[in-house]
Amino acid sequence: MTASWIDNQKNLMLFSGRAHPELAEQVAKELDVHVTPQTARDFANGEIFVRFEESVRGSDAFVLQSFPAPLNQWLMEQLIMIDALKRGSAKRITAVLPFYPYARQDKKHRGREPISARLVADLLKTAGADRIITVDLHTDQIQGFFDGPVDHMHAQVQLAEYIRNNYTLDHITVVSPDSGRVRVAEKWADSLGGSPLAFIHKTRDPLVPNQIKANRVVGDVEGRTCILIDDMIDTGGTIAGAVNVLKQAGAGDVVIAATHGVLSHPAAERLANCGAKEVVVTNTLPLDEDQKFSQLTVLSIAPLLARTIREVFENGSVTGLFNGNA
Amino acid sequence: MTASWIDNQKNLMLFSGRAHPELAEQVAKELDVHVTPQTARDFANGEIFVRFEESVRGSDAFVLQSFPAPLNQWLMEQLIMIDALKRGSAKRITAVLPFYPYARQDKKHRGREPISARLVADLLKTAGADRIITVDLHTDQIQGFFDGPVDHMHAQVQLAEYIRNNYTLDHITVVSPDSGRVRVAEKWADSLGGSPLAFIHKTRDPLVPNQIKANRVVGDVEGRTCILIDDMIDTGGTIAGAVNVLKQAGAGDVVIAATHGVLSHPAAERLANCGAKEVVVTNTLPLDEDQKFSQLTVLSIAPLLARTIREVFENGSVTGLFNGNA
Amino acid sequence: MTASWIDNQKNLMLFSGRAHPELAEQVAKELDVHVTPQTARDFANGEIFVRFEESVRGSDAFVLQSFPAPLNQWLMEQLIMIDALKRGSAKRITAVLPFYPYARQDKKHRGREPISARLVADLLKTAGADRIITVDLHTDQIQGFFDGPVDHMHAQVQLAEYIRNNYTLDHITVVSPDSGRVRVAEKWADSLGGSPLAFIHKTRDPLVPNQIKANRVVGDVEGRTCILIDDMIDTGGTIAGAVNVLKQAGAGDVVIAATHGVLSHPAAERLANCGAKEVVVTNTLPLDEDQKFSQLTVLSIAPLLARTIREVFENGSVTGLFNGNA
Amino acid sequence: MTASWIDNQKNLMLFSGRAHPELAEQVAKELDVHVTPQTARDFANGEIFVRFEESVRGSDAFVLQSFPAPLNQWLMEQLIMIDALKRGSAKRITAVLPFYPYARQDKKHRGREPISARLVADLLKTAGADRIITVDLHTDQIQGFFDGPVDHMHAQVQLAEYIRNNYTLDHITVVSPDSGRVRVAEKWADSLGGSPLAFIHKTRDPLVPNQIKANRVVGDVEGRTCILIDDMIDTGGTIAGAVNVLKQAGAGDVVIAATHGVLSHPAAERLANCGAKEVVVTNTLPLDEDQKFSQLTVLSIAPLLARTIREVFENGSVTGLFNGNA
Amino acid sequence: MTASWIDNQKNLMLFSGRAHPELAEQVAKELDVHVTPQTARDFANGEIFVRFEESVRGSDAFVLQSFPAPLNQWLMEQLIMIDALKRGSAKRITAVLPFYPYARQDKKHRGREPISARLVADLLKTAGADRIITVDLHTDQIQGFFDGPVDHMHAQVQLAEYIRNNYTLDHITVVSPDSGRVRVAEKWADSLGGSPLAFIHKTRDPLVPNQIKANRVVGDVEGRTCILIDDMIDTGGTIAGAVNVLKQAGAGDVVIAATHGVLSHPAAERLANCGAKEVVVTNTLPLDEDQKFSQLTVLSIAPLLARTIREVFENGSVTGLFNGNA
Amino acid sequence: MTASWIDNQKNLMLFSGRAHPELAEQVAKELDVHVTPQTARDFANGEIFVRFEESVRGSDAFVLQSFPAPLNQWLMEQLIMIDALKRGSAKRITAVLPFYPYARQDKKHRGREPISARLVADLLKTAGADRIITVDLHTDQIQGFFDGPVDHMHAQVQLAEYIRNNYTLDHITVVSPDSGRVRVAEKWADSLGGSPLAFIHKTRDPLVPNQIKANRVVGDVEGRTCILIDDMIDTGGTIAGAVNVLKQAGAGDVVIAATHGVLSHPAAERLANCGAKEVVVTNTLPLDEDQKFSQLTVLSIAPLLARTIREVFENGSVTGLFNGNA
Repeated sequence: MTASWIDNQKNLMLFSGRAHPELAEQVAKELDVHVTPQTARDFANGEIFVRFEESVRGSDAFVLQSFPAPLNQWLMEQLIMIDALKRGSAKRITAVLPFYPYARQDKKHRGREPISARLVADLLKTAGADRIITVDLHTDQIQGFFDGPVDHMHAQVQLAEYIRNNYTLDHITVVSPDSGRVRVAEKWADSLGGSPLAFIHKTRDPLVPNQIKANRVVGDVEGRTCILIDDMIDTGGTIAGAVNVLKQAGAGDVVIAATHGVLSHPAAERLANCGAKEVVVTNTLPLDEDQKFSQLTVLSIAPLLARTIREVFENGSVTGLFNGNA
Repeated sequence: MTASWIDNQKNLMLFSGRAHPELAEQVAKELDVHVTPQTARDFANGEIFVRFEESVRGSDAFVLQSFPAPLNQWLMEQLIMIDALKRGSAKRITAVLPFYPYARQDKKHRGREPISARLVADLLKTAGADRIITVDLHTDQIQGFFDGPVDHMHAQVQLAEYIRNNYTLDHITVVSPDSGRVRVAEKWADSLGGSPLAFIHKTRDPLVPNQIKANRVVGDVEGRTCILIDDMIDTGGTIAGAVNVLKQAGAGDVVIAATHGVLSHPAAERLANCGAKEVVVTNTLPLDEDQKFSQLTVLSIAPLLARTIREVFENGSVTGLFNGNA
Repeated sequence: MTASWIDNQKNLMLFSGRAHPELAEQVAKELDVHVTPQTARDFANGEIFVRFEESVRGSDAFVLQSFPAPLNQWLMEQLIMIDALKRGSAKRITAVLPFYPYARQDKKHRGREPISARLVADLLKTAGADRIITVDLHTDQIQGFFDGPVDHMHAQVQLAEYIRNNYTLDHITVVSPDSGRVRVAEKWADSLGGSPLAFIHKTRDPLVPNQIKANRVVGDVEGRTCILIDDMIDTGGTIAGAVNVLKQAGAGDVVIAATHGVLSHPAAERLANCGAKEVVVTNTLPLDEDQKFSQLTVLSIAPLLARTIREVFENGSVTGLFNGNA
Repeated sequence: MTASWIDNQKNLMLFSGRAHPELAEQVAKELDVHVTPQTARDFANGEIFVRFEESVRGSDAFVLQSFPAPLNQWLMEQLIMIDALKRGSAKRITAVLPFYPYARQDKKHRGREPISARLVADLLKTAGADRIITVDLHTDQIQGFFDGPVDHMHAQVQLAEYIRNNYTLDHITVVSPDSGRVRVAEKWADSLGGSPLAFIHKTRDPLVPNQIKANRVVGDVEGRTCILIDDMIDTGGTIAGAVNVLKQAGAGDVVIAATHGVLSHPAAERLANCGAKEVVVTNTLPLDEDQKFSQLTVLSIAPLLARTIREVFENGSVTGLFNGNA
Repeated sequence: MTASWIDNQKNLMLFSGRAHPELAEQVAKELDVHVTPQTARDFANGEIFVRFEESVRGSDAFVLQSFPAPLNQWLMEQLIMIDALKRGSAKRITAVLPFYPYARQDKKHRGREPISARLVADLLKTAGADRIITVDLHTDQIQGFFDGPVDHMHAQVQLAEYIRNNYTLDHITVVSPDSGRVRVAEKWADSLGGSPLAFIHKTRDPLVPNQIKANRVVGDVEGRTCILIDDMIDTGGTIAGAVNVLKQAGAGDVVIAATHGVLSHPAAERLANCGAKEVVVTNTLPLDEDQKFSQLTVLSIAPLLARTIREVFENGSVTGLFNGNA
Repeated sequence: MTASWIDNQKNLMLFSGRAHPELAEQVAKELDVHVTPQTARDFANGEIFVRFEESVRGSDAFVLQSFPAPLNQWLMEQLIMIDALKRGSAKRITAVLPFYPYARQDKKHRGREPISARLVADLLKTAGADRIITVDLHTDQIQGFFDGPVDHMHAQVQLAEYIRNNYTLDHITVVSPDSGRVRVAEKWADSLGGSPLAFIHKTRDPLVPNQIKANRVVGDVEGRTCILIDDMIDTGGTIAGAVNVLKQAGAGDVVIAATHGVLSHPAAERLANCGAKEVVVTNTLPLDEDQKFSQLTVLSIAPLLARTIREVFENGSVTGLFNGNA
């Protein structure tokens, strides 16, 4: 006989960058595997070295990395890990990015700007990623930046369930902090039983990305419990300003809900003092003690990631995991 | 001497698909060139044949195509023209798409869907396009779908100027027909001197793209002249429904302004009878007599396209052409 | 243990565009599977929307599309389906094209023309096709336009068997309708027991693709049953003209055999009245009642396609399926 | 001022592999340039080393190579030269292949074969070639194997002019040596004033490429001067056999005309003794004294190549150079 | 007339990342241009934003970035700048990297490691770089990692000239600090008039990149002035250890010469106290006051970079700039 | 049910070019498979034809080729075989190159040179190779030239074991024949129990690759058994010269050990007469009787290749096969 035959099996291996090891451990526990041991080290001048301690040949590799500051370092680490997997003959490589970096630079706001979110997709592809799993992209169109399958999961189900369990839905108004999130707010309103909508009409200077001029509320918020939603909270300036505007407009309790708690300084201080009753985020990003405050509630994203990884590995459908949106 | 030297010149050549020859002629006239003569013919089974009547070697080629129905035919024609230019040694090929086809399918609304807007970008690249000029994409992120320069022009300047010249700004409210266009409405509001905003809170079923359930107005429209804005008007169902909702909410005159007048049947009838005072569009798409009606005003997009082509050819900046947005 | 192991299985899924659903059903029946249910719809302006109703993750997907008019629409539909499969994580995607569109534009007949057949191959690759199954390409070289495996099947076996079963081979001459098909006629002559050859010496103007000036017969046809062969019959002008020339040269019965019955208007009328005794084609393309006529015989290509798909799925050899030509 | 400006010039540089230096010198003389001096050397184990003696930065480089035996060595030399030009910053690289190697393997004759002609096109592209100039491809479709401009020139104009000047056209019949060249013979017939056609009906075993079973003449050749045409003559078996068949069929003088004189052993002996009155080829390939014989006439292809290179460099049309076929 | 013609000019534009602005200013001054003004800013979470203040259309763009710590941030900044230039229609983009990051990871030292130096080349290509200018790569083979022209310049000419001007050549021995640099030391020996060679025989553990076990000197150093050469000095452990070994072996003065002064902590302290008479580096990397010490001499690399950029822009030869090595 | 399911198996198939059939047979025997039968033939003008005699669909194909002279022909043969496998639907294609051709041209030694070793990697990728297995690359960095997994095996383990079994280690000095191999010599010294090192200080003219000016020994060799190591021996000039220099410096026995015995003429004569006691190589390249001589010992590389292929096929780790270097 000319050929030698064997059965074809496949094995799931989970890899983790150093940005958010707790999340990787949570995901591993849900999947009932271990995070693959590796040597990862920084050279004195900042160069990163990675080496896996076990053979990765033929594996179905999932490479989890989160993106707190210093974000560029973690991105480079993930690219290097993917390169090592490619050269080590992994069969398929899925980059898992609970928070997609540079998502806000998803278009040229003015001339001679980069589209960094597309660049990130191309860098992942070039390094060797075959597919991406991510959560709540800043805009859905970023899926199309990657030339391959993107499983785009949504934390809204979990967040909305938390709201439903902890607040009375009767007097709720869902509020978008700016004109660009009204569509997402609309989906929230549906998931909270058809509540009314409002948004803050303001101006944002494209040259100064984190500064916002909040204007006035469009929609009815007086005396109502406002669920102020967003995809991410970075320095908290926008969202804290929105709370202020809502309060001035006579709103009742204000609860903030966002998937990604970036919480760059001075977000903790701003949010603690802005008058919001509660701030709910998930742990797509790690949080230091400095970033936490008494009103903060953090839900774990690990179950959603683990179920998605499991379905991808077993070629199941992930549509059921996020309420009809994948 | 080993080498033979000559000065390097470059020449602008304009090519036009058969979808909208009037627009090509208008652009040619603005540029003071002729549309390059070509043979274009349909075989009996629908295959398209194209041949250029002049040498295209070394040219800086601009290939203009519009996308009315049958849109797939015009797309294939443009791809074939680009292929012929590539094989005929054009130096640089710019695809000019006043209306970008499949722009609404810019993400997976649910699982197992295509991202056709990215596919279109990749098809243009594969055929040989080096760059794209387009007008008012459905979402700005589509720029990032193309791996190369995209000059994304905006007709809003012209449309807003028309509104300013023909309507009193004092009682104007800018209205977005749905939750996804509020950000664009906000820009309109700025360009009309800081007018108030409103939008229609409604639900759109992702499985049935052209059907909309309009709900109620968020924002103050009573007694005000409403400028109802959108990027495109297809069958007119959404926008006519929005006029109805506005009228029920006590709005004064309603003026509709949109860049792309797709005006698929029965848009003309719906818009003529919906109660709008005027409907303003540009000619990024050709309009049959059947698609026209008494309240319709059509502005020419040719000057904007011609100036952009000229600047691209001469390596000038196009930023000044659209009020700080490129 | 670090990794989670499972056995690797694979599953065949059949998808069908809307151009020729009968053929898809025939193929599905032969394969003992169902055509995967999908939503496919045209927007009012001609844009196509596709969504699969079942998970396609990890599948070995075969996407069947035929190409009657409006051919460009069906091509775009197939590209969109392939894109949706790629983004939905199909493991391998095979485009099945019983009739390869634009096959006649397989070279530049003169300067500044496209090579549309190569463009089609590149578009399929760009959308995400890993391989192609097709039948009787206009020229064999088109296989080389695709960067990947092409299973190029031949209907000649079935057609020749039909001729052998229905006509006496003693007085047969195989005739090529033009100088470019003589090689194929030679293969036919071999399969019909070594019959003589003839061809029509004529001139075709490269600028006017469907018009032909037939001249005179080269080879001996007087009193003989002529099997006039071709890869496709479009408007029927060439082939009907060839029948006329043969009859004037004293030929006996003339039987036309071709794989692809494009039969664009006015083929039915021309063929019915040209004097041919019978016209035999396969159903690689669907046929309306308007395209049919009394002398027409249609053989089903489904068994050949199904066996090829089965062998590709099971990694068998397809060489045996077509008499030593793959 | 931020930028530094200079006029943009371009310079034509001609490079030559070592396969056919005489042709390169002829082309250089026609172009009034020198062949760029280079070091080219073979290592003892067969590896080739190339280095250019002058700067090639920014040049419009034309790399001429011919392909006599040992053909694979010359192909590798051309690829290495192109790589050196790419890394040396040539602006544009045109591969000039008067004879395209592996052109006969332009399809899979049976299963599990390569398509080497496509492979050659891809290798040239990978090394860095932007465009190709070639002469009389075995099949026109090979143009489509290269992803970029191919200037496909034809020596038929020169060859036919030679026939017209040296033979009386009255009694001429153009003969194709096999069923696959009848279309080319038809073009020859047109260029010789509409002469009759004939071809040899034979069988070629796809597994044994150079062996042919010639059968009988189709068409009228008795007493006529036969112009037996082909694209290339390799070992001469097919063509000498064809002369024999023609003579047996009562033909008058037989003149052989082909673009490419491969003339592998024992072509010279076969052709000298086959009964042909004259054998006319061009010098797309070099000829040793061993390959020559008294009836052989060799026309120079250099003027056609030089004019094509000049037009490509100056962005002129090459269509006029070959009688309406580019 | 169909086409519009203009003369083709080109303009050199210089761009600088924020890692080493002094070097950019020095290069700009040598070139007599200004560094193109830009907005570059870090978001609170570490994301980088870049926008150019002048049109870059059609420019011949040179993007200079150095790579001190935090190196990954500067790499990402350069990639983002290149992306912005590509999307802003720069004609040609040259990445200028005086120090190439991750050059030491140019191979897999053991299994399951990345080849980060190749990854960097691919990332630059993906972002849009057409070419690279760099200085003294860790190994010459890294040139081959980039698919395009690499101008690899050498600072050795300047460094050796400095040694010749400041030290007596009579008693010099050139010393390689390890077995991998002996070839480079040999080149140095040639440029210092044929001096003897020596090297340190030691062992480096591939798992612990910065730790070295120095053994003993091979070659004659007793009583001689040792020029200890290297491509880069990072933490200085290897090189300081080498000085110690040389001193123990009876060497006279030891002078260290290296192109890249990475000088990560505690290099300054180590080098100041290691017993070396002088340490000579260039400014391919910026140096803080903390990194400097009394024996340190820094030569400027700006003249070499500026001359290379000028020659690349004007299509001149750079071979003359570095003594026959490019 | 919509889909048809089967278990997924995979089969190892071994293919061999015609350069070194003995090695292929040895590898096949170790793997317990047969070399897949094929037709491989040279056309009269040097073109190569290949066809496999068994179906290769879905196979895990390993294509072994060695590279003696005429090396370019064998390279082209391997590329053609890979192309045929790609088009024949092999699942994964691994190119096995015991000796990597053009490895010495791994950088531009001077300007305007190719980097042929990168070109070879790109040609293999373009033809369709997914991965590479090779032995003792001239420089390790060549691994990074290929965009995919490279299993880089080392024959040093076998060679060193042979030395340990046949020579007393007490008086051994490991000698590098030039300054570029000292690092490799250092690894040898470790594997021979920490023996001393020496090297030949010489000059090589980059323009004349095979000519070397040997100078003098650096390191202590007097009275010692010298193990003179190299990756390959081509014409033997360098290595024979090194033996001479060592002998003049008072060395005892000199034993030469190299992985690749290229042994181009006049290597056999030179090595037989150079004074070396023994010359040990492996059979990565075939050896004619003319290339052999009495002092030559040839070890088989087949066990190492077979074990590597087996591990790759079964997704095992190859790290253990070569002592910690993969």
